[in-house]
Amino acid sequence: MSNLGAVLTYVDDHVDDALKRLLDVLRIKSISTDPAFAADCAACADWHVEDLRSIGFEASSRKTPGHPIVVGHDRNAAGFSVLFYGHYDVQPVDPLELWSHDPFEPFIETRPDGTKAIRARGASDDKGQIMTFVEACRAFKAVTGRLPIPVSLLLEGEEESGGASLPGFLKANADELKADVGLICDTSMWDPRTPAITTMLRGLCGEEIFITGADRDLHSGFYGSAAANPNHVLARILADLRDADGRITLPGFYDGVPELPDVLRKQWAALNFDASKFLGAVGLSIPAGEKGRDALEMIWSRPTCEVNGMGGGYQGEGFKTVIPSVASAKVSFRLVFDQDPHAVRKSFREFVKARVPADCRVEFAEHGSGKAIRFDIGAPAFEKTRRALTDEWGVEGAYVGGGGSIPVTHQLKSALGMDVILAGFALEDDRIHSPNEKYDLNSFHKGIRSWVRVLDALSH
Amino acid sequence: MSNLGAVLTYVDDHVDDALKRLLDVLRIKSISTDPAFAADCAACADWHVEDLRSIGFEASSRKTPGHPIVVGHDRNAAGFSVLFYGHYDVQPVDPLELWSHDPFEPFIETRPDGTKAIRARGASDDKGQIMTFVEACRAFKAVTGRLPIPVSLLLEGEEESGGASLPGFLKANADELKADVGLICDTSMWDPRTPAITTMLRGLCGEEIFITGADRDLHSGFYGSAAANPNHVLARILADLRDADGRITLPGFYDGVPELPDVLRKQWAALNFDASKFLGAVGLSIPAGEKGRDALEMIWSRPTCEVNGMGGGYQGEGFKTVIPSVASAKVSFRLVFDQDPHAVRKSFREFVKARVPADCRVEFAEHGSGKAIRFDIGAPAFEKTRRALTDEWGVEGAYVGGGGSIPVTHQLKSALGMDVILAGFALEDDRIHSPNEKYDLNSFHKGIRSWVRVLDALSH
Repeated sequence: MSNLGAVLTYVDDHVDDALKRLLDVLRIKSISTDPAFAADCAACADWHVEDLRSIGFEASSRKTPGHPIVVGHDRNAAGFSVLFYGHYDVQPVDPLELWSHDPFEPFIETRPDGTKAIRARGASDDKGQIMTFVEACRAFKAVTGRLPIPVSLLLEGEEESGGASLPGFLKANADELKADVGLICDTSMWDPRTPAITTMLRGLCGEEIFITGADRDLHSGFYGSAAANPNHVLARILADLRDADGRITLPGFYDGVPELPDVLRKQWAALNFDASKFLGAVGLSIPAGEKGRDALEMIWSRPTCEVNGMGGGYQGEGFKTVIPSVASAKVSFRLVFDQDPHAVRKSFREFVKARVPADCRVEFAEHGSGKAIRFDIGAPAFEKTRRALTDEWGVEGAYVGGGGSIPVTHQLKSALGMDVILAGFALEDDRIHSPNEKYDLNSFHKGIRSWVRVLDALSH
Repeated sequence: MSNLGAVLTYVDDHVDDALKRLLDVLRIKSISTDPAFAADCAACADWHVEDLRSIGFEASSRKTPGHPIVVGHDRNAAGFSVLFYGHYDVQPVDPLELWSHDPFEPFIETRPDGTKAIRARGASDDKGQIMTFVEACRAFKAVTGRLPIPVSLLLEGEEESGGASLPGFLKANADELKADVGLICDTSMWDPRTPAITTMLRGLCGEEIFITGADRDLHSGFYGSAAANPNHVLARILADLRDADGRITLPGFYDGVPELPDVLRKQWAALNFDASKFLGAVGLSIPAGEKGRDALEMIWSRPTCEVNGMGGGYQGEGFKTVIPSVASAKVSFRLVFDQDPHAVRKSFREFVKARVPADCRVEFAEHGSGKAIRFDIGAPAFEKTRRALTDEWGVEGAYVGGGGSIPVTHQLKSALGMDVILAGFALEDDRIHSPNEKYDLNSFHKGIRSWVRVLDALSH
């Protein structure tokens, strides 16, 4: 245990150097969904390879049909092995005008109380979180010359854009990547004081639809009413997806969605989740989803349907009296328990087709799918990790649900047969996917210290 | 009458020179709705001033709070006076990738049958049509040294963007602009062989709405269902605007909308309008509007509600699981008979507000309003014009309804007390407001000849 104290001290003494490295990688524009940034994604993968090699990992950037995947190994220790997963790609930055600073020129903000935050795209999701783990490894190597357990890293470059390459990669490299447990650092604290391990994650089904009416844009004064308007067709479809009680109307959508087990309901009630504070933090006050469900259920254990984007016709300055030829929408479903993403997709497409007039056309594009997942927290590694987090933060670590989908968790389970411990240091106000994304310097610093403690705990 | 023949011959002999002038003015990017093109609008006004001066008009570009208005006078003749109205501004050109040529580098297309068309933004709406009248004046001056009647021109630069400056300008300059009748060349032939005078025009009420939910874009995995999604709120509002029978549901919307008078219904029935051909020409087949109304009623004498643009959330390449902070839509209503645009706007705003959740916000922007208008075709100038058109085209000129709104007609009536003769040579397939807009060379050439005959007819 003397080692642990020395490694933690090393972290404290060298946090400025660690921060410099994080700022370096935040400058790389690794937006995976936009093909214009493919070279930046490859450069980001290379950056991680070099960085991992510099601390003694055997690391390489592996080609995939999409963006490269970084793999690194340091398996010189014996004992319980881990595979750490993170993603080096980031969300797009539009609308750019809402950023107070260049999203790829990280800015250290000092708050009135003296605490600091790193503002940049990817600061929290997921580059800052990746680096908490890498810096923990670096500190061990610097102080003890070795890692306490065998460690592999897997850094994906398509998490924000459907993750199409990962499943095949995992299958093709299963023997190389297999470990006793997976560690994923892409989740949040319960609150700024309370560390959390996420033990349930929703699945995802992403769809894009294109409604085409006339073969050209029309003048609404000449063709109005008489010609089908794809904007109207689309608005009707999107509105029909929900009934007056906020329930999603797709036939069969709630198949495989049980009521929350009493044990979880009680555990969650004990968290004293404050829905009005949760919504109040973003300027809202009224839970918008299914009537009769509380907000924590909505975001953790109920399925959702959200229109993430829609557009049709003239959206520029001023006015243009046009009936557009095409209108489109991006729709995502978050799935829970045993909902089948393929069945949801099929039901959605039938639902849409039934609402498209006979002289209009609809096309679909698929954007990712994954089932929901739950982990067995009875496995000893979960409790060891929870205790290590409790030691670092001085507050009992919580087992929580998670609203987002992290498809890799399901893939690690199915392709490699591994359980996954999801522990992260993001905060609710990190504005991930939004302008002015940030990561608290405290999340970064204590995140590194947390992983030092977890690696140590898993070695005993 | 010998003059008339000589002037028509002059037109035929000099049509290539006339075309060159039209191509010149088509190169000017006078997009009025986008402030980036303000200097181009001013340049276009100046071009017309110079051109009118070159044929002896006293012409000037007049400042307004928006784009300039061009006024020209040649009142050396005695007798029945006319005020010709046109607009030199054009619609935006997006989506640019759907144009086969640069929209501001006019292209003369020769069809397999040898006929030609001018492809450019504004070729038909309204620069080509303006120049038919100007070239008719030029021919009279060249052949006879004078115009047969007193002529004034008024060329607006904001017709495609709400026309905010015109009403005040007309009021402030009523004495200068007053004439015995207005002539407007911004309408279509009945078909490529049959000239038409439009005697009814629908009014317009344009609205833009902005729905704001959270104070930032949110991650739909964390906030989905719980946080109001402005895309959903907007889709519901837009869908609710119509019932299952295609009727518009705004309270009071149909106040002041009578059934079509029998006399007009019979006259229109005689036109043998072919709805399937009308829709078939743009790739559609099923009239989409109110059940039980035929397509000609829909586009001429029934009010409409069209969503001309809508957008919210991520619309780029790929996928982004965001709940947008804001969604917006541009909605236009075409009004008929005695519908009051202000009452429609008020009803619409109340309708929207009633559907916005208490923790969301809605803002509105007004984009133009005008009442519908009908003209008394008993006035002699109407029949003189119809006969002149009949003489030129060899087919009886038709009195028709019009689907679009030309707010200036109402303003000329109310501010100057003038009736207006709407005669134009555009064709149904001119793709105005769409990519690849065109004006047939035949429309241009015979349009010039038509105005020569009308000016002559009005002098007797």
